[in-house]
Amino acid sequence: MEILVKHIKGMHFQGEGNAKVVTHIDQSVKAGGTGMGASPMELVLMAIAGCSGMDAVSILEKMRVDFDRFHIFVQGERAADHPKVFTDIEVVYKFWGKTLPEDKLQRAVSLSMEKYCSVANMIDKAANLTYRIMINPS
Amino acid sequence: MEILVKHIKGMHFQGEGNAKVVTHIDQSVKAGGTGMGASPMELVLMAIAGCSGMDAVSILEKMRVDFDRFHIFVQGERAADHPKVFTDIEVVYKFWGKTLPEDKLQRAVSLSMEKYCSVANMIDKAANLTYRIMINPS
Repeated sequence: MEILVKHIKGMHFQGEGNAKVVTHIDQSVKAGGTGMGASPMELVLMAIAGCSGMDAVSILEKMRVDFDRFHIFVQGERAADHPKVFTDIEVVYKFWGKTLPEDKLQRAVSLSMEKYCSVANMIDKAANLTYRIMINPS
Repeated sequence: MEILVKHIKGMHFQGEGNAKVVTHIDQSVKAGGTGMGASPMELVLMAIAGCSGMDAVSILEKMRVDFDRFHIFVQGERAADHPKVFTDIEVVYKFWGKTLPEDKLQRAVSLSMEKYCSVANMIDKAANLTYRIMINPS
């Protein structure tokens, strides 16, 4: 797997890979950038959510579990000192739908986090990674 | 730090954080997606490049080193078995410009990779991470 990241201006970079679209990377205005893209540490959290989200979608399809809506919320705590790595990361899977069997949702998410999700299984070596599901949260 | 990733359709997800723009996440058409965004594993490589690229830009500015163009190329080798984590990652920093002192470029990149870059310092716990610089490559 190969990607190319090009410097645009200041903290703004542009990532190119297999996708039809580029990925914009930047710092927020508050952190000295222009807010034109996700920050690298945000990208790590999005990669965990995307990776595990894709697993969950695939597994739930095989289990014939239908959902109306599916969001993944990720929160990361960082160390105070450089290199300011994530110390704790919590992933919350939120599912909305009429007939959502909790055991199957839990099983799909666990299979991803414990076995299939490449990103989570790498980050787990560096940070304390926890997860939980919520069904039809308000 | 908090991010939200929303399921759009199939393998296509959309990430929201502090940026003014969303980040699209998808699998390539070849891998069963629609190619509408970077794959999660590509995002990890882009996060390493973006994180370290921002460090390099900041450090080189302090060193008063001017470059015309700056690209970061990242290559990742994955394990054959689930969860198919990266085993080896190589980061190649390519700088173009008229007066580029190799020692300062090397120092900027090393400071990032060894000390400041949060993403690289996490991924380094899971994969063998190496890096090198190229000056005015053709």
